[in-house]
Amino acid sequence: MKIGWIGTGIMGAAMAGRLQAAGHALQVYNRTQAKADPLLARGAAWCASPAEATQGADCVFTIVGYPTEVEEVYFGPHGLFAPATRADTLVVDMTTSPPELARRIAATAAARGGVALDAPVTGGDIGAREGTLSIMVGGDAAAFDRALPLLQLMGKNIARVGGPGAGQQAKLVNQILIAGTMVGLCEALLVADRAGLDREQLIGLLGAGAAGSWALQRLGPRLVGGDYAPGFMVEHFLKDLGLALHEAQALGLELRGVELARQLYENTRALGHGRSGTQALILALEALNPPR
Amino acid sequence: MKIGWIGTGIMGAAMAGRLQAAGHALQVYNRTQAKADPLLARGAAWCASPAEATQGADCVFTIVGYPTEVEEVYFGPHGLFAPATRADTLVVDMTTSPPELARRIAATAAARGGVALDAPVTGGDIGAREGTLSIMVGGDAAAFDRALPLLQLMGKNIARVGGPGAGQQAKLVNQILIAGTMVGLCEALLVADRAGLDREQLIGLLGAGAAGSWALQRLGPRLVGGDYAPGFMVEHFLKDLGLALHEAQALGLELRGVELARQLYENTRALGHGRSGTQALILALEALNPPR
Repeated sequence: MKIGWIGTGIMGAAMAGRLQAAGHALQVYNRTQAKADPLLARGAAWCASPAEATQGADCVFTIVGYPTEVEEVYFGPHGLFAPATRADTLVVDMTTSPPELARRIAATAAARGGVALDAPVTGGDIGAREGTLSIMVGGDAAAFDRALPLLQLMGKNIARVGGPGAGQQAKLVNQILIAGTMVGLCEALLVADRAGLDREQLIGLLGAGAAGSWALQRLGPRLVGGDYAPGFMVEHFLKDLGLALHEAQALGLELRGVELARQLYENTRALGHGRSGTQALILALEALNPPR
Repeated sequence: MKIGWIGTGIMGAAMAGRLQAAGHALQVYNRTQAKADPLLARGAAWCASPAEATQGADCVFTIVGYPTEVEEVYFGPHGLFAPATRADTLVVDMTTSPPELARRIAATAAARGGVALDAPVTGGDIGAREGTLSIMVGGDAAAFDRALPLLQLMGKNIARVGGPGAGQQAKLVNQILIAGTMVGLCEALLVADRAGLDREQLIGLLGAGAAGSWALQRLGPRLVGGDYAPGFMVEHFLKDLGLALHEAQALGLELRGVELARQLYENTRALGHGRSGTQALILALEALNPPR
């Protein structure tokens, strides 16, 4: 199948690579061309704009950074919805971006006679490379069925969770879960450290019980070892927490836990750890609580 | 072996029952005698006081409710440390109580020529019945070795994590992990609810990834089903969060996440859910955020 692909960052390049490896013909656009080079070297066609990537494509995937970039990619003068583009292409935004933007994209696609899905992912760079992402899809059921064989090349747990925007909402729910867990994880490991406990031992002992979590098992040991390399970057998580708070407000909800997490992650970024992994949160707690 | 057992609440009765089933002779004290009846019916001897339970016992276990009760059981006029009691008995406090109290008990035991361990547990009533608790032990290494065969009848993951009080500190670390996770869980499921998402589907979809936790898998479905029966009671968790904050203060630490959790759990109790399970936290969030 001929597929357009917009966005070849760490996640996007790995996900597109899986479609390519399965034999699909890619037409690729990225703001920085160099990041698309590995895909181009394996035969993908370069496009000068998102609009160009729609030409002859049955489906176009987008996975970029911030909401403003999603807007540009879809609604910009050379975007997927520019007048000259193919209107009946299925467009799938896999960026984590606002539910309301997903709904606007879906409405615009429909008005042009096309269809759009929002399909943000979790599972990180490893999941992207191995095709084990979880994918939360919002939008039309028939469009979901149409996209599913392609999504199955990228992910393992894939579900349509509702209409346009619902995929984005589900992703924000995921980030809210993580926010609370990370605050608890870092506060707990700070206490353990100051109490002089063996934190690696504790992770093994407590991880098997009611305090167990993916974060404790995977990020706990990195944190204890002073390894702040990203898995998932603080600045991206901050973006997502901002989206979560915005969506919560739209739903009439005050989320004090997410507010606290955002504040602490802002502190983490201010310490120069915006591009560290989310486990660097403990550095903000340490800064607030200097050893006596 | 002849074993004293103080405290036959839900946890204590189940744990003592496992020692009894393994052939140990129990001498039991509890504030409310009726709760000891099942143990007495199977041959345990009733004691009129904690002091009496030390007579001829190689080891005495205590698992009561609040720190004041622990104090009374050890230091009261009819407590384990009353003048007439056997001094060389190994005493093991399995209540979750303050690390400083554990250190005072250990020092007092040592001054009398005996030895004490702090050995709080996690794993709930099911773990207590099935002997699959996690047990975090603080105290003397030789005393730990002496207690271990008995602890192994009650638990599966058992470790000595340091000197006197370290077991209690490890337990508080456990509760801090849970506090953050519960705030995230309830905020996330509140957003999912107001967004009209299928929360059961989400728990399955998100639980496999970076947002996964014991709490999401075990308490999420109960919460979604409106089942607030305890697992672990709000009022007991509030006690533990108070201990955690007190210990943090002693270590010079401010824990904003635990503070928030305590505040929200106080609200939960004020709603009449002190004896509900910790998943009832979502009711406090719903009360703060009434549907529009």
